[in-house]
Formats: sequence, structure tokens, C-alpha cells
Amino acid sequence: MPVGTRATVRGLTPEELHATGADMVLANTYHLWERPGHRLIEQVGGLHRFMAWAGPILTDSGGYQVFSLRDRLRISEEGARFRSVLDGQYRMLTPEVVVEVQEALGVDVAMALDECVELPATPEHTAEATARTTRWLHRCLEARQHPERTALFGIVQGGLIPELRVAHAEELTALDLDGYAIGGLSVGEARDRMLEMVELCTAHLPADRIRYLMGVGQPSDIVDAVLRGVDLFDCVLPTRAGRHGQAYTWSGRRNLRNARYATDPEPLDPSCGCPACRGYSRAYLRHLVKCDELLGKRLLTAHNLHFYQQLVSRVRRAVQVGDASALQAVREDAGRATRRARDGGPQVARSGPGV
Amino acid sequence: MPVGTRATVRGLTPEELHATGADMVLANTYHLWERPGHRLIEQVGGLHRFMAWAGPILTDSGGYQVFSLRDRLRISEEGARFRSVLDGQYRMLTPEVVVEVQEALGVDVAMALDECVELPATPEHTAEATARTTRWLHRCLEARQHPERTALFGIVQGGLIPELRVAHAEELTALDLDGYAIGGLSVGEARDRMLEMVELCTAHLPADRIRYLMGVGQPSDIVDAVLRGVDLFDCVLPTRAGRHGQAYTWSGRRNLRNARYATDPEPLDPSCGCPACRGYSRAYLRHLVKCDELLGKRLLTAHNLHFYQQLVSRVRRAVQVGDASALQAVREDAGRATRRARDGGPQVARSGPGV
Repeated sequence: MPVGTRATVRGLTPEELHATGADMVLANTYHLWERPGHRLIEQVGGLHRFMAWAGPILTDSGGYQVFSLRDRLRISEEGARFRSVLDGQYRMLTPEVVVEVQEALGVDVAMALDECVELPATPEHTAEATARTTRWLHRCLEARQHPERTALFGIVQGGLIPELRVAHAEELTALDLDGYAIGGLSVGEARDRMLEMVELCTAHLPADRIRYLMGVGQPSDIVDAVLRGVDLFDCVLPTRAGRHGQAYTWSGRRNLRNARYATDPEPLDPSCGCPACRGYSRAYLRHLVKCDELLGKRLLTAHNLHFYQQLVSRVRRAVQVGDASALQAVREDAGRATRRARDGGPQVARSGPGV
Repeated sequence: MPVGTRATVRGLTPEELHATGADMVLANTYHLWERPGHRLIEQVGGLHRFMAWAGPILTDSGGYQVFSLRDRLRISEEGARFRSVLDGQYRMLTPEVVVEVQEALGVDVAMALDECVELPATPEHTAEATARTTRWLHRCLEARQHPERTALFGIVQGGLIPELRVAHAEELTALDLDGYAIGGLSVGEARDRMLEMVELCTAHLPADRIRYLMGVGQPSDIVDAVLRGVDLFDCVLPTRAGRHGQAYTWSGRRNLRNARYATDPEPLDPSCGCPACRGYSRAYLRHLVKCDELLGKRLLTAHNLHFYQQLVSRVRRAVQVGDASALQAVREDAGRATRRARDGGPQVARSGPGV
């Protein structure tokens, strides 16, 4: 899912988003609750109509964003009280609020409120947060008014503690939820640890329900997570990298600020059919990036989303037909795409507050 | 002409620009000279190919932008020496440089270097600057290497002094130029004074050559200037206003930040066929503007350019068939479009450094 935090995937129209191959988009409960407000969106016909997106929409609860506020946050059993960055007002995100907001938005999939712990965390703190996540999930389930319209996914927490992850996955499975998310990963831990936790979770979550890995990730992370049973992803990387002048290609991430592109008449990726690659030279894209021009952000965003959709479509096909060599090939290609191309440039942060 | 200072009309692809009805675009010699450099653009096939625009391109010389640097500028007979905002280096814009740069860009119409005077100006200073503009024009004409490919327009100056305007227009007419621009207007003078100067200039410029009024203007300015014989315009208003959340409509300029649009399900202008009006509600556009989202800037820019092209196409048709009542109707409509719609909002500045 491309990330459309504020009911827009930055710079793209819904038609362009659809043309990248995207079926489903993610928006953010917390951000839309603050601005323009869920009742306003409900009044004008719901989030689909508001943002003119006919496909499915999933909303993150916003817990992750609120928990990144740290010094502005106080967590209690009731919920997460925080001071809004927008207007300085105190607000309280509770399980009941996130369900009310998401049902008012009329989204297809709502996420339960969870408590993320910052790493490193003590086992005690991690266990507490995980237990509270379960209690909040129960409150979310009880608060639902329109289960027939809006599915609710629970979120497996448990930090980097295998026993906690397994126990939590089993606990949530027993609740027979619409779908399951794996949260609290890709927050700074080593990649192997992340994949280990993913594998533990998927092994203890039902295979006939969607298993969604939140906030992941680089192309290689996605392929490796699919190989461990994950069905659904969201990540700001393709859009954020695009806005910062970085382009994913099968030969590596290219930093369009690089001087080597200054007079390069070639398309960004000659094998790509996206609007950026069909219409312009690398020299022009570099110029747009250097000048911080809107068109550059827009074209590279579209390119990166197109690339990610190509990637997952290759993985999907290989999994569907059970073609092990095709899977291996896409795994290697994803590894190459994740690394910097020879022409280099600074790394893009792997994850963040998701705005 | 929509303004594409840095070889891009902010946020739009060439296809979208073309779809607004635009035939010809303006870019800026000074900005492209600084970044990415005219030799670079020449090397990758010229400005048309670089920015993927197949239609005609006119470049402003950049004099106007340099003259707005004031405290960083020293004018001599040689040219305008200034300190670059980009890298702090001293550069010198001369008649020979602007011709060399524009010919290297391969544009269809190059503008001569002129000296703009800041208002208020003494008659002596205005006369000096006008005389220097003529001397610089002669140097531009001599510096040309490719007159068969790139036309050169001279610029009538003369401030707000009728005699100077007339004398300068006659002086340039005697040079039998490819086309004529009227410069130094819409810089803070009263609207009536501006139109008076325009009328004096067009009356003394050949009717069988293009007469181009630089940097103008509001819809009503454009109609009134056409009625005084002007053929060509450029203005940052539709694009800049769009980026700032303002939309031109036949019932006035609308400020999309206005709270009255918060839950308004109507399209921006139900009679308009642009992408913004065909796909989204005012409520959604307002949300995008309030969140400073790229998509909002982009959609409102496209809408405003579409509006301006509709306007000039109505004027053109009325002039072609000599329909006085149609002209009067479009004049009244343009007046309405220039004023704020009832729902108000702050004025957009009439002109500026054009970036």
C-alpha cells in the first residue's frame, strides 16, 4: 500500500496512483482526525469519495505517530494523551476514539490502537505494553458499530522477545479477527532480528487471514517477509525517497542529485514504463531535483511506486505458480535494488514517523 | 504564456500544460544560465527536448530578476553585475551573454537585455535607462549567431513618461525587429497609468508584429490590454495564486483556505473542464491547501492556467469575428474574475520577481 497519510499520496492523483499498479492505499487515522476531522469527511460522503479513491483503504490508527511524540505524550490505561503538534491542544487517543474515527471515515480496514515500545525496552516494559495492546484491542472490538462495513485488524506486539511474540500471536488468533498486523518492527533493530520476529508471528497466525507487516520496508525486506508468509505491506520509503530525489531501479537506488547525471540523456530506467521514465532524461530529472521542483518530486514518487508494484507483482506471480527459481531471481534483484547504485548518494532512512 | 522559470511550470507535466490550452511557454534566461547552465541544456539537445515541450518557447532575459536584487547589483554600460543568490559568486549579465545563452537554449523567441527602473524614478534616470536599453539592444542584435532559428524581441521602456514611451517605441520600430515587448509596467503604478502607457506603445509599434506586454496580469488587465492591441502576455499570477490556494473563477477569485468550503461537496467551478474541477470537491481541495499538499498546488495551478486560457480564447474569438458585445461580455466577466469572490481571502500580489 502506498502511504497517503493525509488522504493524498503526495503529489499524485488517484488515477496516477492506480496507474502505478496500486490497489489499496493507507491513510492515517490520527492525522485525519486532527485535520480535517472525521465528521467532516463523513459529512461529504466518506474517505473514498473525499480523496476520490475507489479502491480499498486501510487506516493506521495513528498510535505509531503519537508514540513518536515522546515528550508530548502520556500513556494511561485509558489511552494516549498528547499535545497536538497542529494546535497545541491536548487530545486523547483511545481505543474507542480510533474505532469511531475509522468507522466514520468509512474505510475498508481499521487498525486497533496498540502501544509501541521504543527500543531498547526492558522485558517488563515490553510485556506490559503487549498486554495493554490486547486489552485495547478488546475495547476496540466492543466499540465497533459497523463491523459489516469496516474490518478490524489486531496488531501483534512483543518487541524482540520471541516468547512474547508467539504468545501474543496466539492470543490474537484466538480472537478470530478479520486480519492480523505485525507491529513494532523496523524501528532500528537488526534486519535478521526483524525477519526472525516476522517468521515467529506468521507461524502462529492463521494462514487464511491477511498478515500485514507494518511500515516495512526496503525491496529486500518485502521479498524476505513474503517468503515468511506476509501478505500486505505499507511503507513510506518509495514516496519519501522520491520526494528526496532518490529512485529505485533494478540496478540499485539512484541519487538523482549526483553530478554524473548532469548531461545524461537516458531515461531513468529504460526498462520502466512509468511517466518519469517515458518522458524525460536523467539530466532533466536531476535539474528538477536540484531545484527542488514539484514536478521532480511527483515524477520520482510515481516512479518509485511503480517500481514497488512491479516488485510485488513479480513476487506474487512467483508465489502463485510456486516457481522457486523466479522467487530466487526476484530476491536477488530486490537485494540489488535495495543497495545504492554505483553512483551512490546518501541512504534514505529505513523508517520513521510515517508522515 | 504560462511561466516556467526553471524549465518547468511548477508541478505540471508538459502534457498537462498543453491540456490547459497553452501553446507557448516562458522560461527564464538568467535562472537557466545559473542552473543547470545553457551549455548543459545545449548538450542534451536544447531546451525543448530538455523540458519535453514541443511548442514554442520564449525566454525572458532575466534582467527583471537581476534588477530586483537591488543591493547585490551594479549596473554599468557593460552590463549588470550581481551577486548570485545561488552560490554567492559575482556574475555579469551583458547583452552578449543573454543572446549567447538564449541561442544555446535554442528557444524560439529571445528577449534583449533591458534596464528596468524602479518606481518612483526621476525623468533623468528613466531617460538614461531607456537610452541604455536601446544601446544594449544594438549589442544584442550584433551578437546574434542564429537569427534564422531564434527571433529577437526588443523591449520598449520609458517608465511612465508618455514622450519617452512614444520616442522609444518609434526608435525600436525603425529597427524592424522580429517582435516588440512592452516592459517596465505592472510594477506598482496605477492601473490607468499602465493602460495609458500600453496604448501609447501599441499605437507606435507595427501592427503586423507581435506586441507583447511583459508580466501582465490580472484577467481584466489582459482583456483591456488586448483591446489596446497587445497580442502576447506572460504572468506568474495563475501559477503563483494556485500554489497559494487561490482559484480564478468567473464569479471571482476563491480562496480555498476559507472555512466556508470545509464541507462543500461541489466542484471548484462546475462549468470548468479542468482536472481539479472534474475530480474533486471544494472540501477536498481546501483540505489539500490547508495541509500544504503538493496535489493541491498542482490541481489549482492547472485550474488557473485553464481559466486564463479560456479567458484569452474568448477574447481571441471575439476579436477575430469583431463581436463588440462578446468583447464587452468577456470584459465584464474578466472584471468579476479579477475581484475576490464573496467568500474573500487575501489579495494575491499583482506582480513580483517572477520566480
